[in-house]
Amino acid sequence: MARGNKVSSAVIRRLPRYYRYLSELQNKGTTRISSGALGTAMGLTASQIRQDLSCFGEFGQQGYGYTVSSLREEVAEIMGITRGHSAIVLGVGNLGRALIENFPFSEYGFQVRAAFDVDPKIVGSSLQGIPVYDVKKLGEFLQNEPVNVGVITVPKQVAQKIANELVAVGVSGIWNFTNVEIAVPEGSAVVESVHFSDSLLALSYMISPRGTGDDDDEMDE
Amino acid sequence: MARGNKVSSAVIRRLPRYYRYLSELQNKGTTRISSGALGTAMGLTASQIRQDLSCFGEFGQQGYGYTVSSLREEVAEIMGITRGHSAIVLGVGNLGRALIENFPFSEYGFQVRAAFDVDPKIVGSSLQGIPVYDVKKLGEFLQNEPVNVGVITVPKQVAQKIANELVAVGVSGIWNFTNVEIAVPEGSAVVESVHFSDSLLALSYMISPRGTGDDDDEMDE
Repeated sequence: MARGNKVSSAVIRRLPRYYRYLSELQNKGTTRISSGALGTAMGLTASQIRQDLSCFGEFGQQGYGYTVSSLREEVAEIMGITRGHSAIVLGVGNLGRALIENFPFSEYGFQVRAAFDVDPKIVGSSLQGIPVYDVKKLGEFLQNEPVNVGVITVPKQVAQKIANELVAVGVSGIWNFTNVEIAVPEGSAVVESVHFSDSLLALSYMISPRGTGDDDDEMDE
Repeated sequence: MARGNKVSSAVIRRLPRYYRYLSELQNKGTTRISSGALGTAMGLTASQIRQDLSCFGEFGQQGYGYTVSSLREEVAEIMGITRGHSAIVLGVGNLGRALIENFPFSEYGFQVRAAFDVDPKIVGSSLQGIPVYDVKKLGEFLQNEPVNVGVITVPKQVAQKIANELVAVGVSGIWNFTNVEIAVPEGSAVVESVHFSDSLLALSYMISPRGTGDDDDEMDE
C-alpha cells in the first residue's frame, strides 16, 4: 500500500529482481533495453516497469529505453548497496556456515565482521577469515564495533532473546532465518525474515490440485 | 492478480502465515479467535482476513469467530500439507545439510527420500537416516521412486542442468535455493525460489535513508 509518497512493499520487493535481471543483462553484454523487453524478461508489463521506476526518479528515455549499466547502478544506489553495510552472523550451525561460506555478502554491499556461537568447539576459530566469538561477548563487541545488521541463524528457542540484544545495542536491521516471527519495538530495527516454511508451503499449494501450477507472477497490485 | 476464480499469488503467500499464526495460537491453548484479533496479530484487517479465506470456502461464524484448530486444519488441507509430498535434495553442501538436518520437512507434509551429491566423500553416507547417492544415479532413482519435489541446493553453475533433469522425469515442483532464476517449459514444474539476495537487498533498502524502516506490511493489493 502506498501511503503518500511511501514506496509500496511490492515495489521494494521487485527492486532486487530488477537488479538481478539488469546484472544478468550486463553480464551478457547487453547495453540497452526497452521497458517492454525488460518487462518480458521479468514477467511484467512495460507500464509496470515505468511505474515502478518512477517511484525513484526519472530513468531511461522515450524511444531509447534504459542504459543497462546506469540503470543497474541507480537501482543499486536506491537499494543502498553502495552504503557499506556491516553485519554479524549469530549462530554458526549449518545454515550460518552456509551463509558465511557461500553467500556473497560483499556483492550486495555487506561486510561480515564477525560470527557468534555458544559452541566451545568453534568459538575462537574463523570461517573465511571471519572470527567466531562467544555469544557472551556480543554486547562488548558491538560497543567497540557497531554494525548495521544482525543475521540470525540461531535455534528458534533463542531467536527472540538474541533479537532483543541486537535491538538493545541499536542495530538497524535483523535478517531472520529462524522460521519464527521476531517482535521488535516499533521504530527500532527492521526485521526481514526468510521463512523457508512459507516458501515450501506456497510450493505445496501450487503443486496441489487447487494450485494452477503457473502462478509465478509476482504482481500483486 | 485474480484471473477469474484463480486465487491471487498475494493470498497464496499469506496462507502459510495464517498457518504459522494459527499453529502458534493452538500451541498457546487458544481455542477460538475473531477475524479482528487474528488480523491484529498478523497486521491485516478483519475484512482482509475474511476476504482471503472466502477464496476457499466458508469458515467461521459471525459473532463467534474461528475455531483455531479447525481453521488450522482447513488451511493445512488447502495448502496440501496433508497430501504426503515426497522430496529429494540435490546438493549436500552446507545449505543442503542445513535443510536436511534442521528443517522440519515432515511438519509440512514432506518426506525427504534421498539426497544427491557429486562428492565421493559423502556419497554413500546418510544424514538423519536419509541416504546420499551419486547424482549420476538421479534418473535411475526417480524411475524407481517418483518424487513430487526436488530441492536444489547445488552450485548455481549447475542449477539449470539439474532442474532440466528433474523436469525431464516429471517432478511437479522445484524448490530453488541457488540464487539464480531457473527456467522450465511452460506447464511443466512449478519453480519456487528462495532468493536470499532479494531478501537481503530489501532489508538494505529498508534500513537506508530512502526506506521508512516500518514497512513490514505485506498487503500489496
